[in-house]
Amino acid sequence: MDPRSSSKIPVAVLGATGSVGQRFVSLLAEHPWFEIAALTGSERSAGRPYSEAVRWMQEDPLPPAAAGLEVVPTAPGLPARLVFSALGGGIAGPLESALAEAGHIVVSNAGSHRMDPDVPLVVPEVNPDHTALIRSQRFAGGDAASRGAILTNPNCSTIGLVMALKPLFDRFGLERVSVVTLQAASGAGIPGVPSMALLDNVVPFIPGEEEKIPAETRKILGQPTLQLSAQANRVPVIDGHTLCISVELTSMPRKDDRLDVERLAKTFASFRSEAVRGLPSAPVAPVVVTGRREGPQPRLDRNRGRGMAVTVGRIRECPVLGVRFVALVHNTLRGAAGGALLLAELAVAQGILGEDLSRPAALAARVVGSLG
Amino acid sequence: MDPRSSSKIPVAVLGATGSVGQRFVSLLAEHPWFEIAALTGSERSAGRPYSEAVRWMQEDPLPPAAAGLEVVPTAPGLPARLVFSALGGGIAGPLESALAEAGHIVVSNAGSHRMDPDVPLVVPEVNPDHTALIRSQRFAGGDAASRGAILTNPNCSTIGLVMALKPLFDRFGLERVSVVTLQAASGAGIPGVPSMALLDNVVPFIPGEEEKIPAETRKILGQPTLQLSAQANRVPVIDGHTLCISVELTSMPRKDDRLDVERLAKTFASFRSEAVRGLPSAPVAPVVVTGRREGPQPRLDRNRGRGMAVTVGRIRECPVLGVRFVALVHNTLRGAAGGALLLAELAVAQGILGEDLSRPAALAARVVGSLG
Amino acid sequence: MDPRSSSKIPVAVLGATGSVGQRFVSLLAEHPWFEIAALTGSERSAGRPYSEAVRWMQEDPLPPAAAGLEVVPTAPGLPARLVFSALGGGIAGPLESALAEAGHIVVSNAGSHRMDPDVPLVVPEVNPDHTALIRSQRFAGGDAASRGAILTNPNCSTIGLVMALKPLFDRFGLERVSVVTLQAASGAGIPGVPSMALLDNVVPFIPGEEEKIPAETRKILGQPTLQLSAQANRVPVIDGHTLCISVELTSMPRKDDRLDVERLAKTFASFRSEAVRGLPSAPVAPVVVTGRREGPQPRLDRNRGRGMAVTVGRIRECPVLGVRFVALVHNTLRGAAGGALLLAELAVAQGILGEDLSRPAALAARVVGSLG
Amino acid sequence: MDPRSSSKIPVAVLGATGSVGQRFVSLLAEHPWFEIAALTGSERSAGRPYSEAVRWMQEDPLPPAAAGLEVVPTAPGLPARLVFSALGGGIAGPLESALAEAGHIVVSNAGSHRMDPDVPLVVPEVNPDHTALIRSQRFAGGDAASRGAILTNPNCSTIGLVMALKPLFDRFGLERVSVVTLQAASGAGIPGVPSMALLDNVVPFIPGEEEKIPAETRKILGQPTLQLSAQANRVPVIDGHTLCISVELTSMPRKDDRLDVERLAKTFASFRSEAVRGLPSAPVAPVVVTGRREGPQPRLDRNRGRGMAVTVGRIRECPVLGVRFVALVHNTLRGAAGGALLLAELAVAQGILGEDLSRPAALAARVVGSLG
Repeated sequence: MDPRSSSKIPVAVLGATGSVGQRFVSLLAEHPWFEIAALTGSERSAGRPYSEAVRWMQEDPLPPAAAGLEVVPTAPGLPARLVFSALGGGIAGPLESALAEAGHIVVSNAGSHRMDPDVPLVVPEVNPDHTALIRSQRFAGGDAASRGAILTNPNCSTIGLVMALKPLFDRFGLERVSVVTLQAASGAGIPGVPSMALLDNVVPFIPGEEEKIPAETRKILGQPTLQLSAQANRVPVIDGHTLCISVELTSMPRKDDRLDVERLAKTFASFRSEAVRGLPSAPVAPVVVTGRREGPQPRLDRNRGRGMAVTVGRIRECPVLGVRFVALVHNTLRGAAGGALLLAELAVAQGILGEDLSRPAALAARVVGSLG
Repeated sequence: MDPRSSSKIPVAVLGATGSVGQRFVSLLAEHPWFEIAALTGSERSAGRPYSEAVRWMQEDPLPPAAAGLEVVPTAPGLPARLVFSALGGGIAGPLESALAEAGHIVVSNAGSHRMDPDVPLVVPEVNPDHTALIRSQRFAGGDAASRGAILTNPNCSTIGLVMALKPLFDRFGLERVSVVTLQAASGAGIPGVPSMALLDNVVPFIPGEEEKIPAETRKILGQPTLQLSAQANRVPVIDGHTLCISVELTSMPRKDDRLDVERLAKTFASFRSEAVRGLPSAPVAPVVVTGRREGPQPRLDRNRGRGMAVTVGRIRECPVLGVRFVALVHNTLRGAAGGALLLAELAVAQGILGEDLSRPAALAARVVGSLG
Repeated sequence: MDPRSSSKIPVAVLGATGSVGQRFVSLLAEHPWFEIAALTGSERSAGRPYSEAVRWMQEDPLPPAAAGLEVVPTAPGLPARLVFSALGGGIAGPLESALAEAGHIVVSNAGSHRMDPDVPLVVPEVNPDHTALIRSQRFAGGDAASRGAILTNPNCSTIGLVMALKPLFDRFGLERVSVVTLQAASGAGIPGVPSMALLDNVVPFIPGEEEKIPAETRKILGQPTLQLSAQANRVPVIDGHTLCISVELTSMPRKDDRLDVERLAKTFASFRSEAVRGLPSAPVAPVVVTGRREGPQPRLDRNRGRGMAVTVGRIRECPVLGVRFVALVHNTLRGAAGGALLLAELAVAQGILGEDLSRPAALAARVVGSLG
Repeated sequence: MDPRSSSKIPVAVLGATGSVGQRFVSLLAEHPWFEIAALTGSERSAGRPYSEAVRWMQEDPLPPAAAGLEVVPTAPGLPARLVFSALGGGIAGPLESALAEAGHIVVSNAGSHRMDPDVPLVVPEVNPDHTALIRSQRFAGGDAASRGAILTNPNCSTIGLVMALKPLFDRFGLERVSVVTLQAASGAGIPGVPSMALLDNVVPFIPGEEEKIPAETRKILGQPTLQLSAQANRVPVIDGHTLCISVELTSMPRKDDRLDVERLAKTFASFRSEAVRGLPSAPVAPVVVTGRREGPQPRLDRNRGRGMAVTVGRIRECPVLGVRFVALVHNTLRGAAGGALLLAELAVAQGILGEDLSRPAALAARVVGSLG
């Protein structure tokens, strides 16, 4: 037995052959705390080695350790209490509930349970204490130590938006928000959008997106009446959602009768979160301000902070709402698998996953302690 | 001498080798009123046959009649009183003034003179009577009949925006407008944007664009204090600007306590303009409402009305300003060469170009009459 | 009843909601000989109006006459003897046979029957007399007049290749051919290739393509032993297959000890076919030679001859086989629906479809006569 | 003074603001042997900090150490004997000669001197001993120790081709080669190809490319009469040239009367080069064989071996020449800056750069020794 691996927390990835599932596998390959114990897939995939079941579309090579794993069905009894869900919208809801009933801690990237009142919807740098919501969940299990739970990662666009809004919200207050998104193809998964629909084209519609963004943003910021308009477009970009944001702040920073752009830039750049300090997937700075006049761009900026930071630029006055800027988020890293991974790290560090995860929690405490 | 051509109005195209210049040449090849008498170009191009001077990038073949024309320098003395300007921003201003001084009627697609107080900035279906502004121009010339003038075509995005706003403005009144554009590569001309900057990428900045759109829109609609925010993005699309628009109307159409989407759709679709009736380049309906759930899309909708109509879709409530919708305009047809051509047709039909254009004016009157 | 339509030949389109099916509908909308009498689709589509069953992806608007037609199942009993098949590979074979058994004349774009010994595989300008093969088909039916038949259109790349090879084959003889294709996304239909697989990427594999091209080329040219190597790539282009071709000719045209490029260019450009003279869909010249130094390009040249001509360029010496050049074919027009339409026109003009098509045949004769 | 940096070899990058220059800066930022002592640029750039002079287009952030360097003119007297040239074709020739005359060791990515008889053209894994050619160069300088020299890196496509051919050449002998390239946009530099020319398009022509590939391949393999046909296409891909290769081998590996594909795959995969063992930029395996049925693809495979390995796939029989396969090379890493860097490492490790480079040579020896 590999002594190194024995000190890591075993995890499973649900729906491992899809686009987000592949990202999970790729990120977990070298994770300091977690190691893959199981990969699940559809009936068609189950029983086959992962390397054969998956049509690998990542730029990194398929990790050898994952390649040989036999894909198993998505069902209770997985050899890991902590499971990451990359399941598709249609099936995620009941499957995740069943796994939580069976005692699994499900960190989900799917949308099914995000708006459930007792399910935390968390961006670790923004609302880390929302994880406590799982205490009100009523899945089966004798005591807290063996009880299952569901924690959710927001929609990819919501994550970028909320991370960009949070520093402004904390410092200046938020009245109204208008956002137009230019979303990458990877957000639709595989097969996702046909190339015929996206070559030399833009599709100004993404099913459900314009409803999810305001609903999730309100829940995360704890502002149930925040006015927020979202317009979503699909553009021919591989990875990286661009967000054109206008906001009305409660108190507008001004200098010499004009918008104090520099102060806004500093507000973004100096934003930090104690909650994620020392977590392996946390970027040094959650929000990076680009100095480029043309602003943040998918191909050039999506990998800032190893794909976990949001890049902001083109901060300027808005004649209608007051402030405008552009934000960019890597939709399959920070906006999906990477975000869920950071959420799991947060949960482990918080020790809220119960005693039978004590070994990893102790590990986490040690790591966090050494960095903190 | 070709008797057919003798009945057409001779025109010149300034800057004929560039992207917009090529569109003018392409559109004029089969124009029922106009025929190309001269094509001008830079020093490098002058003296060479057009077919050699140009790097033809249009999907239609280079019209044979234009192919053999010798490119001449852009200077007074062209064998056509009516000239179309596709000159670049840097040089258009003084060259167009010089030509107007020499008695030419310049219909310009360049930005240099658009905001001059005595220069009409016209979208024929929207503010056709603004052409009368040329009477206050003070170029050399003994009398109105031989005097030069400058008329201008707005920026490509402005045209799409103004055409989409006009029906709402007329029927419901306009308070505030927020627009985010997803603009095609052709808008930057040739060479324009490097492919390295636009493959797998979006550039959320277009120099000058966010200032031009509100300034021009205010001038065209005659609303100098209209609040308008524009955010401009360049996307990897060949032709067709997509506009994500939010508006606050003075009187919001409502039905059963919700936004009356159907009434808005009818307002768009029933919009007509008497001023352009019978003009060769005018589309049957200036604004087309798509029934497609995904809304208007560049590759699928840019050619509606032979590229001269604006397509509107996804009309829905906006939680911030009240109404949202998406509009699409073909930026090098309606938004550039085609728009300027329609403007010239309007001017001819109005007979305001003076007596020495009487022959064409009579022709125009005849044609318009027969259709009217 | 519309007297005009009564003089047209009724046709049906099988698989009308797919990519090629849409092209058929678009091309037939204004066809001078044919008119759509029925559109067929899958179980899911049957019973719904075409406008609702289809996800229209063409740049032309959906023709109003087709929009209202109710989609019917693909089965014998259609109200048109002549049917165009745009069925997918999996189901085309048996369905087309069943229709032919029931007396329908099937002009198919599918691959299922192309290599059947008694099924003609025809490019009208290249091997028009191969249509006679249908006389050896043994479908049910009392006499030739009421008997069904199957005629096939080759693979999209094969069509471009064969049209480019034919003039050389006739004049100089053909020994060996090597072709590398750069194929457009539309060739894979809808949904076809995921955009994730084709943005910032090339896929050097198209299932079955490298086998079809040589087999079909040999059958069409009647050269069963021709050495032909085909390598197929999918590239991020909407329409238009680019073919990089090297050939060894039996007699190499030389001048001053070098390849006689001019003579080759003339051989291409002067190629004509008597068989298609006057047919509505036939281009004036089947092969066009571009003067552009950069050679034929999908976006700039695919629409030559209304998408029915092949464009050739960059003719030059090949150090390995002798001659190299680049050819371009519009894969969904000439290479699919347009090619099948021309084949149907040829069949009608040849009068070989039997007596009960006499009215249309007479019409065709009249039209052809008036043009010939 | 930084003791760490004092043990590194100072280098300069000529033409540091261009596309390849940026790659050099990016790669050198963390190089274990080299450190940037100077960056040169055009007159327009000289005197400005690199961060202002450059329009940074790399996905990695601009390295802080380089950002603050003042760009200097490209002229003798640079504070580094070893210089990397990313100069453009037009000016590289005389400038590189002048620098060599002044005692600089120039490792060039430009094409100007590649075919000079006394200039080595080297792919380190393929012809490492060709570096000895510099002994016949006759630049000024008292003795070998202070004499300048020019070493060159081949064209990006040549590198990929030669690396893929070398294992076959060594084992089976090479008679004839036919290659069709699908080249990425980055190969044309910045601004390079206009996006209008490459969106929804392919350009089947790259100036000079079809002549460079055979000439350079012959020189590198030392086969002056090798028959080689190259056809070059530009495709809408950011990085990664795809090569469709057909070869005729002297002795064709066969098994059971068919091409022995497995033996060919092993020949590729087992290819190693002693000369590059332990060099920092050398990939573990120069040629990687992909197991993917669809073959190597730019977006998925360009980064194999940190962008320094060539990926090969789709090995199969060719009806014309015998063997076909597809190869992929990262054109701006292995095919440009990375390749030149590896060449410089090779030269240092060979100790052929003279005594006054002794310190680095010793360093290199140490490093190589420790790994060897």
